[in-house]
Amino acid sequence: MSTRRLTVAAAQMGPLQKAEGRDIAIARMVALMEKAARRGAEVVVFPELALTTFFPRWYHENLAEADHWYEHALPSNETASLFDAARRLNIGFHLGYAEKTPDGRRFNTAVYVHPNGEIVLKYRKVHLPGHAEYDPVRRVQHLEKRYFEPGDLGFPVVRAPLGAAGPVNIGMMICNDRRWPEAWRVLGLQQVELVMLGYNTPSLNMENRGFEAHHLRVAHSHLSIQAGCYQNACFGVGVAKAGTEDGHELFGHSIIVNPQGEIMAQATSWDDEVIVAECDLGMCELGRNTIFNFARHRRPEHYTRITAQVGSEAPPAWTPREG
Amino acid sequence: MSTRRLTVAAAQMGPLQKAEGRDIAIARMVALMEKAARRGAEVVVFPELALTTFFPRWYHENLAEADHWYEHALPSNETASLFDAARRLNIGFHLGYAEKTPDGRRFNTAVYVHPNGEIVLKYRKVHLPGHAEYDPVRRVQHLEKRYFEPGDLGFPVVRAPLGAAGPVNIGMMICNDRRWPEAWRVLGLQQVELVMLGYNTPSLNMENRGFEAHHLRVAHSHLSIQAGCYQNACFGVGVAKAGTEDGHELFGHSIIVNPQGEIMAQATSWDDEVIVAECDLGMCELGRNTIFNFARHRRPEHYTRITAQVGSEAPPAWTPREG
Repeated sequence: MSTRRLTVAAAQMGPLQKAEGRDIAIARMVALMEKAARRGAEVVVFPELALTTFFPRWYHENLAEADHWYEHALPSNETASLFDAARRLNIGFHLGYAEKTPDGRRFNTAVYVHPNGEIVLKYRKVHLPGHAEYDPVRRVQHLEKRYFEPGDLGFPVVRAPLGAAGPVNIGMMICNDRRWPEAWRVLGLQQVELVMLGYNTPSLNMENRGFEAHHLRVAHSHLSIQAGCYQNACFGVGVAKAGTEDGHELFGHSIIVNPQGEIMAQATSWDDEVIVAECDLGMCELGRNTIFNFARHRRPEHYTRITAQVGSEAPPAWTPREG
Repeated sequence: MSTRRLTVAAAQMGPLQKAEGRDIAIARMVALMEKAARRGAEVVVFPELALTTFFPRWYHENLAEADHWYEHALPSNETASLFDAARRLNIGFHLGYAEKTPDGRRFNTAVYVHPNGEIVLKYRKVHLPGHAEYDPVRRVQHLEKRYFEPGDLGFPVVRAPLGAAGPVNIGMMICNDRRWPEAWRVLGLQQVELVMLGYNTPSLNMENRGFEAHHLRVAHSHLSIQAGCYQNACFGVGVAKAGTEDGHELFGHSIIVNPQGEIMAQATSWDDEVIVAECDLGMCELGRNTIFNFARHRRPEHYTRITAQVGSEAPPAWTPREG
């Protein structure tokens, strides 16, 4: 096997309450980054919307009243200490945050930052779950479709130097994206080797519209990440905000997954927790060159519905001949 | 929940040796069909290439010498008794077989047959694994790319009456197709409710080209089927030919999976074995109308690579600024 080895950390975060400021989040993140560095990590992945509580559970009729949840610049006075810590520790990091652009657009965003503090890659969440208007049936709101527009950057991959492994093909997705095999495949078609993904996923379904298997929610998250990694021959780092936040549980269970779909490390607390794994990037090449050699096996002429239609369509009916 | 309930059977088959004729296979299949009917099944799914040994492990330089492995008509004198048994037992069935068309084309094919004996739907395997020429490095040949051309029918779905549930949206895939999320998604975009899929998968990787996780081969099969069912809100019936065939192990572990990705039934022998599950088709509607409401959440404008390119492409390189 190859000698391209990369040590990655997932920095799960316990809850951030609504009243807690960015200063509290960032102090905890710097401590997590230091712990990851002490354990040999060359890159550390933080969750989705890591700087505040998961605010899409709170309704504001007037969007302008929600402005304080967004970052208007990155780095900023408040987030500069994360960039400083990365330089000091010589560690790359992935950060999820709410982005408000100078021209007033809002995205659920993540960046990957090089150890020198430069932003290497930005991704804006494509698959926004939830709803845009206040929903009186729900137990808790999930207003991502209100507070963000769908990402406009596609699913970019970049080859960037990262630790002793040399250049690594890095891609990102955010939370609900992980359930969509299209997202994984678009990354796989760019030879992604490391997918960083943060999430905030409630332990309970809050739609209050009939049966949902609460006890399977962690299993569904892991199933999606494991299948995505296996079928695209990549490593995945899925990192949660976890625990009881504003009175509502987020399920945690952050994992690092290899290209065989195996879980290499798993967080088992609902607190701030660092998990680390050493990734042999040669495993990606094995998958890409054998069972998932796309050039040899894929048949896009039979996949046209995937890009030609958005929703599903009813199939034609068949009826038996008269007996 | 709905009252659309369908009882499905997976009829796993033990090995068929090279010297054994179709008469032996078909007698066993009729016995399996009778057992499935006694257990209340309204449809029974047989494996890929169910009528013979998995012949792509045997090399013929001259393709014409392999003609005896193919069905030149369906039904035929030999397979008519399967169709007769379906009528007698009032049970639908899915059959995988090697097809040779009147104009000499060869496909790895499956049909779904209505209880009245009519062929409702035909599918020809799109994702052919293996290779076309004799490979001296391999421990065992896997010549599917020699003996078959890729399927030319896409991934069709049809809505056909099936038992007490009324019309059911039926689709098919074959063996290696299950590892390709594109196949599942094209079926999902046609509101598939029941995916029938047969397979013949060796317990050991026979490429003899470095590391492969033999102990994960069943896990990879299940992972792919469970993710496909979950992400497309459908039931899946994955049915193996199992056991030591011509001296080589096939891993069995046939499963029936629900739209939550749960395994409802699993074969645990390497012999002829019937497993049965009652499927509440209302579960498909739940998934289709909530988390996997494609019309609400999919973003095909960001999926263009899936149909625009076949193989993967290297990503752009990023280099840090001079320090």
